[in-house]
Amino acid sequence: MDWPKGFEGLCYGGDYNPEQWPEEVWKEDVELMRRAGVNLVTVGVFSWARLEPSPGVHDLGWLDRVLDLLHEGGIGVNLATPTASPPPWFGLAHPDALTVTADGVRLTHGSRDTYCVSAPPYRDASVRIATTLAERYRDHPTLVMWHVHNEYGTPCHCDHVAAAFRTWLRARHGTLDALNDAWTTSFWSQHYSAWEQIVPPRATQYLPNPSQALDFRRFVSDAMLDHFRAQKAVLRELTPDVPITTNFVLGDWAPVNQRHWAGEVDLVAIDHYPSSNPPEETAFAADLARGWAGGRPWLLMEQSVVTYTGPRMVAKRPGEIARLSLSHIARGSRGAMFFQWRASRGGAELWHSGMVPHAGPDSRIFREICELGELLPSLREAVRAPVEAGAAILWDAEAGWALQAPGLPSAELSYPEAVRQAHRVLYRHGVTADFAHPSADLSAYGLVLVPGLYLITDADAANLRRYVEGGGTLLVSYLSGVADEHARVRRGGYPGALRDLLGVRVEEFHPLPPDLAIPLSVPGGGPLRAHTEDAGRPGDERLPSGRGKAGETGESGERQDTGTFWSEHVHLRGAEALALYTGSHPSAAALSGVPAITRNRYGTGTALYLSTRLADDAYARLLGLRPAHVELVRRGEWLFAVNHGDDERTMASGLCLPPGGYAVLKVRD
Amino acid sequence: MDWPKGFEGLCYGGDYNPEQWPEEVWKEDVELMRRAGVNLVTVGVFSWARLEPSPGVHDLGWLDRVLDLLHEGGIGVNLATPTASPPPWFGLAHPDALTVTADGVRLTHGSRDTYCVSAPPYRDASVRIATTLAERYRDHPTLVMWHVHNEYGTPCHCDHVAAAFRTWLRARHGTLDALNDAWTTSFWSQHYSAWEQIVPPRATQYLPNPSQALDFRRFVSDAMLDHFRAQKAVLRELTPDVPITTNFVLGDWAPVNQRHWAGEVDLVAIDHYPSSNPPEETAFAADLARGWAGGRPWLLMEQSVVTYTGPRMVAKRPGEIARLSLSHIARGSRGAMFFQWRASRGGAELWHSGMVPHAGPDSRIFREICELGELLPSLREAVRAPVEAGAAILWDAEAGWALQAPGLPSAELSYPEAVRQAHRVLYRHGVTADFAHPSADLSAYGLVLVPGLYLITDADAANLRRYVEGGGTLLVSYLSGVADEHARVRRGGYPGALRDLLGVRVEEFHPLPPDLAIPLSVPGGGPLRAHTEDAGRPGDERLPSGRGKAGETGESGERQDTGTFWSEHVHLRGAEALALYTGSHPSAAALSGVPAITRNRYGTGTALYLSTRLADDAYARLLGLRPAHVELVRRGEWLFAVNHGDDERTMASGLCLPPGGYAVLKVRD
Amino acid sequence: MDWPKGFEGLCYGGDYNPEQWPEEVWKEDVELMRRAGVNLVTVGVFSWARLEPSPGVHDLGWLDRVLDLLHEGGIGVNLATPTASPPPWFGLAHPDALTVTADGVRLTHGSRDTYCVSAPPYRDASVRIATTLAERYRDHPTLVMWHVHNEYGTPCHCDHVAAAFRTWLRARHGTLDALNDAWTTSFWSQHYSAWEQIVPPRATQYLPNPSQALDFRRFVSDAMLDHFRAQKAVLRELTPDVPITTNFVLGDWAPVNQRHWAGEVDLVAIDHYPSSNPPEETAFAADLARGWAGGRPWLLMEQSVVTYTGPRMVAKRPGEIARLSLSHIARGSRGAMFFQWRASRGGAELWHSGMVPHAGPDSRIFREICELGELLPSLREAVRAPVEAGAAILWDAEAGWALQAPGLPSAELSYPEAVRQAHRVLYRHGVTADFAHPSADLSAYGLVLVPGLYLITDADAANLRRYVEGGGTLLVSYLSGVADEHARVRRGGYPGALRDLLGVRVEEFHPLPPDLAIPLSVPGGGPLRAHTEDAGRPGDERLPSGRGKAGETGESGERQDTGTFWSEHVHLRGAEALALYTGSHPSAAALSGVPAITRNRYGTGTALYLSTRLADDAYARLLGLRPAHVELVRRGEWLFAVNHGDDERTMASGLCLPPGGYAVLKVRD
Repeated sequence: MDWPKGFEGLCYGGDYNPEQWPEEVWKEDVELMRRAGVNLVTVGVFSWARLEPSPGVHDLGWLDRVLDLLHEGGIGVNLATPTASPPPWFGLAHPDALTVTADGVRLTHGSRDTYCVSAPPYRDASVRIATTLAERYRDHPTLVMWHVHNEYGTPCHCDHVAAAFRTWLRARHGTLDALNDAWTTSFWSQHYSAWEQIVPPRATQYLPNPSQALDFRRFVSDAMLDHFRAQKAVLRELTPDVPITTNFVLGDWAPVNQRHWAGEVDLVAIDHYPSSNPPEETAFAADLARGWAGGRPWLLMEQSVVTYTGPRMVAKRPGEIARLSLSHIARGSRGAMFFQWRASRGGAELWHSGMVPHAGPDSRIFREICELGELLPSLREAVRAPVEAGAAILWDAEAGWALQAPGLPSAELSYPEAVRQAHRVLYRHGVTADFAHPSADLSAYGLVLVPGLYLITDADAANLRRYVEGGGTLLVSYLSGVADEHARVRRGGYPGALRDLLGVRVEEFHPLPPDLAIPLSVPGGGPLRAHTEDAGRPGDERLPSGRGKAGETGESGERQDTGTFWSEHVHLRGAEALALYTGSHPSAAALSGVPAITRNRYGTGTALYLSTRLADDAYARLLGLRPAHVELVRRGEWLFAVNHGDDERTMASGLCLPPGGYAVLKVRD
Repeated sequence: MDWPKGFEGLCYGGDYNPEQWPEEVWKEDVELMRRAGVNLVTVGVFSWARLEPSPGVHDLGWLDRVLDLLHEGGIGVNLATPTASPPPWFGLAHPDALTVTADGVRLTHGSRDTYCVSAPPYRDASVRIATTLAERYRDHPTLVMWHVHNEYGTPCHCDHVAAAFRTWLRARHGTLDALNDAWTTSFWSQHYSAWEQIVPPRATQYLPNPSQALDFRRFVSDAMLDHFRAQKAVLRELTPDVPITTNFVLGDWAPVNQRHWAGEVDLVAIDHYPSSNPPEETAFAADLARGWAGGRPWLLMEQSVVTYTGPRMVAKRPGEIARLSLSHIARGSRGAMFFQWRASRGGAELWHSGMVPHAGPDSRIFREICELGELLPSLREAVRAPVEAGAAILWDAEAGWALQAPGLPSAELSYPEAVRQAHRVLYRHGVTADFAHPSADLSAYGLVLVPGLYLITDADAANLRRYVEGGGTLLVSYLSGVADEHARVRRGGYPGALRDLLGVRVEEFHPLPPDLAIPLSVPGGGPLRAHTEDAGRPGDERLPSGRGKAGETGESGERQDTGTFWSEHVHLRGAEALALYTGSHPSAAALSGVPAITRNRYGTGTALYLSTRLADDAYARLLGLRPAHVELVRRGEWLFAVNHGDDERTMASGLCLPPGGYAVLKVRD
Repeated sequence: MDWPKGFEGLCYGGDYNPEQWPEEVWKEDVELMRRAGVNLVTVGVFSWARLEPSPGVHDLGWLDRVLDLLHEGGIGVNLATPTASPPPWFGLAHPDALTVTADGVRLTHGSRDTYCVSAPPYRDASVRIATTLAERYRDHPTLVMWHVHNEYGTPCHCDHVAAAFRTWLRARHGTLDALNDAWTTSFWSQHYSAWEQIVPPRATQYLPNPSQALDFRRFVSDAMLDHFRAQKAVLRELTPDVPITTNFVLGDWAPVNQRHWAGEVDLVAIDHYPSSNPPEETAFAADLARGWAGGRPWLLMEQSVVTYTGPRMVAKRPGEIARLSLSHIARGSRGAMFFQWRASRGGAELWHSGMVPHAGPDSRIFREICELGELLPSLREAVRAPVEAGAAILWDAEAGWALQAPGLPSAELSYPEAVRQAHRVLYRHGVTADFAHPSADLSAYGLVLVPGLYLITDADAANLRRYVEGGGTLLVSYLSGVADEHARVRRGGYPGALRDLLGVRVEEFHPLPPDLAIPLSVPGGGPLRAHTEDAGRPGDERLPSGRGKAGETGESGERQDTGTFWSEHVHLRGAEALALYTGSHPSAAALSGVPAITRNRYGTGTALYLSTRLADDAYARLLGLRPAHVELVRRGEWLFAVNHGDDERTMASGLCLPPGGYAVLKVRD
C-alpha cells in the first residue's frame, strides 16, 4: 500500500484548521473548496488542545461534524495526529517531557513543538491520542490518509535523551572500545570508561567532538523515527488500509535523514517554502523528494501562495502558483497541497498566507487557486510514467551534518550550497537530475555528480568504483571522500577513499579568501571540456537566470576561467590534468602549474576531479552542456514545459510559450 | 495639584548624587549650583544601599545634611524614592524577588534594576523605604517634588509574575473562553482549559503567540504602574501637597504605556537622550511628552551635555546645550534638567557626562551651563501660553508593541520609524505637531496623520470617522487599521476598520525589497498634491536637513516620485486615485495601474490613504507643505525661534538668526 | 634553574599525543622525529582520561612505553600534567567542580577545560594526578621539563569562585570601606555592608561595575596561578632539578596577567597563532614574550604549520615555517615547537595541522620541517647574546582589561590595537622594541612609547616622570593615565596622572566617527617632527607592508596629515604644540586651533602627547624613523635578517636577500 485509494489522480487542497473558526464558516469553507476543485484536506494538525482539553477528557464532537461536512462535500481527509503541539496542560503535568536546550533551558509551552520525543510521558500521550483518533474515525468514509505529527525536527538534550542516546550508541557501536575509537576520544581526554559517562552534546567550554555531534544527529533522527513508528503501529493495526505518512521539512537545520525515513512512510510527503529563486528551488526540492521516494509518487504536502524570503513575504507573480505546482507535479508529486486553506486571523502565523486570503474569495489569490483546481484533473494521465533523468547527483544527509562541524578548514563550507550548485547547473542546462545515495545502483546514469561528499563508507566508495568501471562518468568535487563514516579523516592524502578511483593524491588544502580567483589554464589550450563530444542533453531552451553572477560571460568562454573559494595541491597518480592553477598572486603562487581539474580513465569509465569551485557556466562547459530557456521534464510520452521567464520562448518542436506560460504535451506515441 | 509650588518659572538643575563624594565636595557643589543658576536637584535616586545599609537599619544622617545644605543654598529638592536599585542585601535575602529572564536566568545584583515589581517582598520593601523617607522629610522646607523610582522599564518572567499576569488577564478578559478567543489559541493547540495553565511568554520552541505577547506588554506596564501607585499612596498621605512624578524613558524597548501612566503622575517628566539628529529627536520627544501631558506643562527630567550615539559619545557643539534645552521648553517643558550634576569618578557610568565634568568647573561645559542658567528665568512669561500645533499625529504605544511581533509580512516594519517620518516631515516644514491618541477629540486639528497604526479598536475607528465627517483631513499610511485590539487581523480586506472611511479595499500586501522603488504616476499629470490650495502653514524657513537622503531633489518635483519599502493591491471603493503604481519591473508589474495614493470625500472632510512609503519631500508635497529653515514654535503672543543650522537665516519678520542663534520674541499684543 | 639541562642549544619539536595512535605508529613517529631533527616533545597534555580511566585507577603502562621509546630515540620529553582536560568521570563525580557561566549555565564535559580552578575537588584531583606522574617519572632519563596544565584561561562564576573572590578581595582591600570606595559602590546603590554580599560579576540587568569587573579579572588570573602553584609545589619537591613551566596564550580574552605569572614559571613559554599578518604578529608576540621573560630566554611552545585566519586555514607560503620560527628565535625564543607532531584523524581538532600532515611525510610540510630541523643547530652560538632593543613600549594587561569595560567614551577603543600600532610602526621602521611594565626601570631606553595606558598607579606615573627627568623621550598617546588602579577617573582634567609630565590639561574628549579625519597643521609650517635630528635607528630596509591603508603616501609627507578616531580639547600648561587641529568640518570646528600633538621639556628629557590617532607613516615621521624592508635583529655580534617580502633586498652591508630569504651573520668581532 502506498497511495490512497480513490486518489489515483492528483491531490489538491491544503491544511484545514476549522477549529480556528466558528461553525458558520465551515459551510462556506466546504462550498469554496468545491468551487476550487479541492479534493483533499489535512485536518487536525494542531488540534490536540481542542480534542483533549484536559488530561483524558476528550471533545471530538466538533471534529465529527467537520468530517461529516467534508464527506458530504466530497472532500477526502488526511487526518493528522496532533502530536506536534501538545496542549498547555501537558507540559505542566509532565515538565520532564518538555524540550531542554543544549544550555539546559527547559522550554515552556506557548508556541508549538515543546516536547521531547524520548520522554516516556510524551511517547505514551502521543500513542494515546493517536489511538483515540483511530478508534473514532477508523470507519469514517472520508478518512483517506494519516498525517502523523508535523515536520519532525525538534532535538532535545534532557536526561531522557541522554539515556536513549546511550542505548542507541550501544546498538551502533557494540562496545565502549569501539565507540572510543570511532569518536577518537583520546583527543582532549574524552575517553569513556563507562556508558553512563556519555551525554548528548551540551553546553561545554570549547569545540565539541565532531563524531559525537554526528552520532547525536543520527540518533535524533532515529529517536524521532521511533516516535513516528509508535503511532504508525496503532494506526496500522486499527486502519490497515489507510496509508500513513508525515511531512518532511527541507532545510539545513532539519535533523531528519529523510532517505532513511522514506522506508518507513507509506508515501513521501514534503513541505516546500522557496525563498529566493522559487523555480530553481522547486526543481531542487522536487527532485530530492523523488529521490527519497525512490522514484515512486510523492506528495507536495505544503506550499504557500506567497514567497517567504526571510525579511519579507513577497506576493507571487501572476500564474506563479500554478507554475510552481506544475513543476512539482512534473517532477513526481501526485498533487499540490498548501498551508493553509484559510489564512488565520490570529495566532503566531496570522500573516501566513492561505488559499482563501484575509481579503476573502474575492481576490486574485483565490481565483488562481480555482484555476489551478481546474487544471489538475487534466494531468491524470501525464503523471503515470516515471520521470526521466539525464544524470544523478549524490546526496547524503550525513555528509551535510558532518560539514556543520566547527573547526573545518573553512568555516564557509556548505554542503547544501555545493549540492545546489551541481543541481542548478544541470537545471539551467536542461538536464533533469535524480538524487541518489552513494550506495545506490547508479548503472542507469551516464553522468553522476558528487559535490561535497565529505564522508563516505568504504562500501560506498567501492560502489562508485564499480559505477565508473562499468562505463560511467563521475565528477567528484573538492572535499569529497576525505572522511570515513565516523567523520574521521582518511590518512595518506586526500580525497581519501576516492584517491585510486580519481588517480590523484592531494597533499594539502588551500581554502581561498573571498576575493581571490585563481586563473585556470587548459594544457594544450582550447576550451575547458571533459568530453570531446557534446553531451547532447535535451536542453535547448535557456532558463531565466535567477542567480547569475555579474561577470559571467555565459558560454562564449572568452573570459579566463577561474577557481574560487577552495584550491588544493593535487598530484597526478594516473589521472591527466584538464586544467592547471596558474597566476602569480602571492596567495596562489604555490599552486602555479598544479592540476586543478583532472580526468582518470578507470575501467571503461571516466572519473573527473574538480579541486576548486567553478562558476556555473564553466562547470556546464566542463560537462559539455548547452543552456536551456524553459523548464522541460519528460515522463514517457509526455513532456512538461514551463516558461518561468519574462520572454516568449519557442522550442525546437515549434511550441511557443508566452512569458509565464506552460504546457503538458503528448510528444511520443 | 500638578506643578510644584514656588516653581512657576522654569526648573533648572539635574540629578545630584552627593553620596558619591566626600562631604567637603558638597559645599563646592552648592556654591557651583548657585553660580549656575540651579534651583532644583533630584536627590537620592540610587541611594537605597546608603540609606538602609542592612535590612531595617537606616542611615539618614548624611541625607539630612545634604538637604539642609541645599536648603541653605536656596535649592529645591526633587526627592527620589530609591527603589530602582535595591541594595545587594535585598536580593540575597529575597532571591524570589530578583528579575528572571525569559530563559529562566535569575539575575544578580551588581548593576541596577534587579528586582521584580510583582514580587511581594520587593513591593513591601519599596513601600517601606518610601515611607521612611516621607516620614523623615515631610516637613523639610526644601522638599519640592517626589521622584518615585527611576525609568520604569524592567520586565520579569518569574512565577510571581505568572500569578499576577493571570490576575490581570482575568480582569481584562473575564472568562477563559474570551481569552482563548482573543488570543486565537486554537492555532497551534494553545487552548487553555484552566487559568493556571497560562504563563508569561518564556523561552519556547518557535514563534510566540502575538496576542499573548501584546497582553504581556500591557500587563508589564500595568504591573509597574501598580508598583508606582503603592508608593504614591503613602507619599500622598504623608505629603498631600507635594507633587509626585516619575521619569519616563523613551525608546522602543520601553514597556511602559506613557499615555496611560500620564493620568497617574502629577506631572509628566521624561528623560531624553538623542542619538543621531538631536534637534529632530528633541522636537519629537518634546511633542510626545506634551501629548502625554495633555497639553499641560511637563518636565525634561534628564538630558546630557554630550550626545550618546551608541558607538561613541560625541561632544555637543558650542551652544547646543542651550538650543536643545530651549527647544524642549518651547514645546512645553517647564525646565531643563540633566543627568547628572557632577560626573562620577567611578561606577558603571563613570564616563557619563555631568554639568560639572571631570575637568571641573574650568571648562566649556560648565560655562555653557552657567549661560543657560542665566537665560532661563527670562522665559518665565513666554511659557505661560499653550503651544500652538498645526496638525496632530496619532500615536499609540500598543500599536508599536504589536508591530514588534515576529512573523509580520515584513521583518523591517517599524512603528517608531513610521511615526518619526510623519513628525519629521511636519517639523522640517515648519508645522508644530501634537501627538494624540486615536480616541482623542481631534476636531481642533485641520490635519491628522495616521502612520503605521497597526491595531485600532472599533470605537477609535468610529472616532476617526467622526473627525473626517466633521470636516477634518486624515492621512492614513499603510498597515494601519488592519488589526483589532487583540492583534487579530480584521477580515474582508485591508485596512480593516478603516476601509469605509478611506473608500478602498486592499486585497494583498506587496512588501518591497530594499533596492526597489516603484514609480508613481499622477492621473491626469501634474504634481503630487492632496489639496488644490497651499496649506499655508507657518513654516517659512528651512531647517537643517540632518537625514536628507541622497537623490532627493526637494520641492522642485522634477524627479519622478516613487514608492518604496511597501506596496499594496488597492481597489477603489468610493475613493479616487491621486497616484498610481507604474513601471515594468517584474516585482512591481502586477501592481501597474493600481492606485497607490487615494482620496476619499467623507462627510465634509477628506480621508487620504497612502499605501506605500514616500520620500520626505514627496510626503510634504502631498500635504502642500513648504520647507522651513528655522525651528519656530508659537505660544500665544510669543514666538520661539532656534536656528540649529550652520547658515545665517533671516525670517519674514526681518529677524536675523546667526548660525546656532535663537530668540524668544513677543510677536503679538 | 631556568633552562633545561642539555638543551643549551635550541629546542625543536612539538606536542606529541601518542595515545591517539596505535602503538605501531609510535615507532614511525620516533623515526620521523629523528629524521626531522626533533629533540623535544611535549607529551600527555590531554591524556588524563587515559592515565586515570576511572577515579583512582591508573594506567601508565602505555606512557612508560612511549617515554622509553622516545628516550631510545634520543628525544627529550616535556611532560605535561593533564589537568587542562579532566576525564568525563570527573565532572559526573564532582558536578560542583564544573565551570559555571555568568548566566549560571553549568558546563558539561565533551570538549576540554570543563573545570573550576577554585573548586576544591578539582584542585585536589589536579595535585593527585601531578603527584602520580612525578612519582612515576621523577627518575626517567628523558624527562626534561614539566608542562603544567595547558593554556590557562578559563573563568568560572560558581559559588566556590564567589568564596575565593571574597578571600582575595579581603587581602587586596583590607576593609569593606576600602572596597566600597575603590569600586565607587555609592553609584547605583551597590554599597556592600557585609563581605558575603559580594559575588562575581554574574548576569545582571544592565552595565556591570567596571572596578568589580577589573578586580574579578585580576582575581581569575591569581586563582589560576594558585592552581599552577599547587602543582608546581609537588613537582618541585619530587623533581627539584627539572624546570617547570606552562604555556601562555595570547589574545584579548586571556584572563592571565602573563607578566605577573612570569615570576612563577621557571621559563616563559607561549603559544602563538598569527591570523592576518604573520610576520608582524610574530615580532609582536616574540617581543611580548621576551618582555615577560625579563630578557631571559623563553620558548615558543606552540605554533602551527598553517595560518588560522578565523574563517579559514591558509597554507603557509614556501619557507614561511622557517622564517617565522627564525623570527621568534631572533627575538629570544630558544626553540621552535609546534602543535602538534602528527595531525589527528579525529576529535575536535582533526583539521588542526601537524608537522606530519594527514598526507604523511611525503609532503611539502614535512620536508620544510626537516629543513628547519637542519638549520636550528647552527644557531646555537647566535642566540647567546641578548636581543638589542632601540625603544620600549609600555604594556600592562590590567590596562587592557579596564578598556574592555562597557560605557567608555567610545565602544571602539581597543588596547591591543593601540599597542599593536606602536609596535608596528617601530617594526616597519627597523626598530626592535622591548615591552616593559610602567613600573620598570626605563633608563636604558632612548625612546618609550605609551599607547592607551588607561590606568596607571601614582607610583608608576612617578616612574615615568623620573625617566623623562633623566633625559628620556616619552610619547604618550590618548586616553593614557586617566584612571587610577581601581579604574576610577582622575579628576581635574585628563590625562590625569600624566598632566604635569606632559604639560597639558585636557578638558573634554571628542571621539570621532569612522569617516572623519581632522587635518593637522604644524605651527610655523614644515613637516611633522618631534625631533630636529634624525633618530638614526638601524632600520635601512623597508618591510613588506601587510596592513598599509590605501591612501597612505608613505614618507613623502606631501599629503596633509590627519587625526582620526579620537580627538581632545587640549590646553597647553607648559608644553608647546607640535600640531594643531584645523579644518571646518562641523564635527571638528570646535577644536580648530587646539593643540593635537604637544612636546614638553621636563627635566633633561622630552614628553610628547599625541591626542589623536595618526596614520602609521605620520607616527613614524613624528619619531624621525625611516622605513625598513627587511626584518633585522641584532644580538651582540650577530645579526638576524629575514626578508618576508616578495622582492629581493640588498642591505647597506651589501648582503642580498632573495624573496623569502634569511641569514644569520656575525657582523662584529
